[in-house]
Amino acid sequence: MAILIKDITLANSITDVLIEGNKFSKIGKIAKDSVKADKIIDGSNMAILPAFYNLHCHAAMTLLRGFCEDLPLMAWLQKIWKKEATLCADDIYNGTRLAILEMIKSGTVFFADMYWYHKDILRAVEQMNIRCNIGVTFMDSLGEKTISDNFAFLDDYAKYDNELISFAPAPHAIYTCSGNLYKRCYENAIKNNLFLQTHLSETETEVNDCKKTNGNLTPTEYLSSLGILSNKTILSHCVHLTDNDAKILAESNATCVHNPCSNMKLSSGIMNYPLMKANGIKIALGTDGCSSNNNLSMLEEMKMATLLSKVVFQNENGITASEVFDMATVCGATAYGIDGGKIEENKIADCILVDLNNERLTPSWNLIYNMVYSADSSCIDTVICNGKILMEGHHVENEQEIIEKASKFVNR
Amino acid sequence: MAILIKDITLANSITDVLIEGNKFSKIGKIAKDSVKADKIIDGSNMAILPAFYNLHCHAAMTLLRGFCEDLPLMAWLQKIWKKEATLCADDIYNGTRLAILEMIKSGTVFFADMYWYHKDILRAVEQMNIRCNIGVTFMDSLGEKTISDNFAFLDDYAKYDNELISFAPAPHAIYTCSGNLYKRCYENAIKNNLFLQTHLSETETEVNDCKKTNGNLTPTEYLSSLGILSNKTILSHCVHLTDNDAKILAESNATCVHNPCSNMKLSSGIMNYPLMKANGIKIALGTDGCSSNNNLSMLEEMKMATLLSKVVFQNENGITASEVFDMATVCGATAYGIDGGKIEENKIADCILVDLNNERLTPSWNLIYNMVYSADSSCIDTVICNGKILMEGHHVENEQEIIEKASKFVNR
Repeated sequence: MAILIKDITLANSITDVLIEGNKFSKIGKIAKDSVKADKIIDGSNMAILPAFYNLHCHAAMTLLRGFCEDLPLMAWLQKIWKKEATLCADDIYNGTRLAILEMIKSGTVFFADMYWYHKDILRAVEQMNIRCNIGVTFMDSLGEKTISDNFAFLDDYAKYDNELISFAPAPHAIYTCSGNLYKRCYENAIKNNLFLQTHLSETETEVNDCKKTNGNLTPTEYLSSLGILSNKTILSHCVHLTDNDAKILAESNATCVHNPCSNMKLSSGIMNYPLMKANGIKIALGTDGCSSNNNLSMLEEMKMATLLSKVVFQNENGITASEVFDMATVCGATAYGIDGGKIEENKIADCILVDLNNERLTPSWNLIYNMVYSADSSCIDTVICNGKILMEGHHVENEQEIIEKASKFVNR
Repeated sequence: MAILIKDITLANSITDVLIEGNKFSKIGKIAKDSVKADKIIDGSNMAILPAFYNLHCHAAMTLLRGFCEDLPLMAWLQKIWKKEATLCADDIYNGTRLAILEMIKSGTVFFADMYWYHKDILRAVEQMNIRCNIGVTFMDSLGEKTISDNFAFLDDYAKYDNELISFAPAPHAIYTCSGNLYKRCYENAIKNNLFLQTHLSETETEVNDCKKTNGNLTPTEYLSSLGILSNKTILSHCVHLTDNDAKILAESNATCVHNPCSNMKLSSGIMNYPLMKANGIKIALGTDGCSSNNNLSMLEEMKMATLLSKVVFQNENGITASEVFDMATVCGATAYGIDGGKIEENKIADCILVDLNNERLTPSWNLIYNMVYSADSSCIDTVICNGKILMEGHHVENEQEIIEKASKFVNR
């Protein structure tokens, strides 16, 4: 499959882009008859940009979007958990497809998922041709039988024959997993050359409880003591960090995932960006699940991240537009070993084409500023993942069927 | 003009809505042949909701969207002001039309504007059939000739023959207007039965400077001492308030306008919602101008307002979805004496029709939760203002011409 995109805006110039297989094979002036393209896209009045990589979500929770809101935290959690427990395998499949549809519509080509029924998530992901790291969730409360089965699944699927899909052991959090379970997960990851996903330091309660039960160690110090922090470790939230935590995380080369919408909605706290930046910690961006956001838009997440940091840490120390755009694109891709996130020759062909005639992108002083501070999903016309078109002219295949299936969950 | 909307979702039921003239004349089962409708809209798979009222913006600043960003505050302001000084009357007209287009696309039918070249703003507003309170900006630096001309303009246009349009004296702020100029503006407002717009307590610097120069009075106490606070006064920002300020504002019956995106982006601070709620202050919502937001979406403003308040004041004390939805609709309408913001018989026919098949509104547990926490402009299909259709099927008249004109500003 070869796609030729003619007359597209890339940075400050107009050029042509050739995609062959899953890579950008040539960028520059390309005559139509000089290449054999299966598809030619007229890129005039559009710009090409990296697509987004959503480093943390619980995709199928789309089904619980707006199920209940604005209750005190524990009352809210109880209601969500009770409803969540009713989700069956087909719900997970339908909810994940709705999530993927929403992500494609807002320009995302990869998500790191952490949920249940991993085979049904796999089914949805394969059908929709998006990239996914499927986190297989571990908690001690699952019991040894399920835990062993999950490890066996990871062993079986570690070299799964689909370049878009990878798996990860995902020990849920330090308050649901013993040190021993964390160690077993990490051993499995290293043995199978997988990444490991977990939640870290999301709330003050988590930090205080950890210090009480683990000899005054913070959650970061505790995970470090278990030997599970490396460049294979992806840590969501990281809201409450000490200076020493920041040093440990930087040295470990682990990636921290910022989830500002979720941290705000759940009153979890505000990630200390200046501290993390000063220590050179790798930071990517994620939306978290639809109960605590309630959408999967990386555009909204970027704006929320930069505006929140500016009001809390002052303009000079906040996250800039170019920093947050990198978090949402190249930093996310790199964290999972994907050679994407940049529109350059020989890079993986993940990209979005945005409509420069959209009112939100007018006028065109600076496209990155407009994407971060002004754009919404209506600006995104086309989404390409691994050299394949997932959306064109705002349309995704089967979108009405996906929405119909997911909407029925309310009537159950 | 009569519009019959058939089979539309309103709250939890499906009904028909008849608009005659500028009002909802009947809501309930309405047979097609029982009324004489000029237009029939198939509302199946759509819901009707109040439209949005944007209580504070500087519309034509759309032209400066993304012009420069992420500089230290004073360096940034200097660049913006220098560019702003180059705007001519036609720029204001084109920039205001772009703003109105963007507002219609995101469901807004009214905006309170505060800018220059009020006759060119009027030209844009009349052409696009949106509601507007045109704030005529006053500063002492304009000089007595311009100040007198502006008062004369307000006298002339106070009873302007267009029910969608009203005018307001808009003394800019306490650091640009003397007490005497504030008093003259308020006298003009009362004489002509107009509202008065101003900025109040946006930054700590403003508060500290005011106390220094006005015998330790806060900006609120100072405006109160001038006698200009009443139900005709609309105060933007109100970020830094004392307990006494809150009491004064509640008693005055003035409306405060919350602008969370702008307050965050400019590091101005965080409005104290619990204090304002405890005192029963009237609060509406606004986007501010496109240099400090950078869009005019009331959807994003609602989400930002509730999430910011939850992370700062904790879940229990933050702004709920239904509170912020009211701020963005009925509270804004009421502040300017518009009998809209509710879908009820005999109310002004301002409304939006949203697409219930949009992925962001799926599933349909609760439409208000979905609108506040999940929706973007792609969810809004139709916008009706004063009984007239401004957008249908996501399309606004002349939209490409408006965008082309505005985009040319970059090349000047």
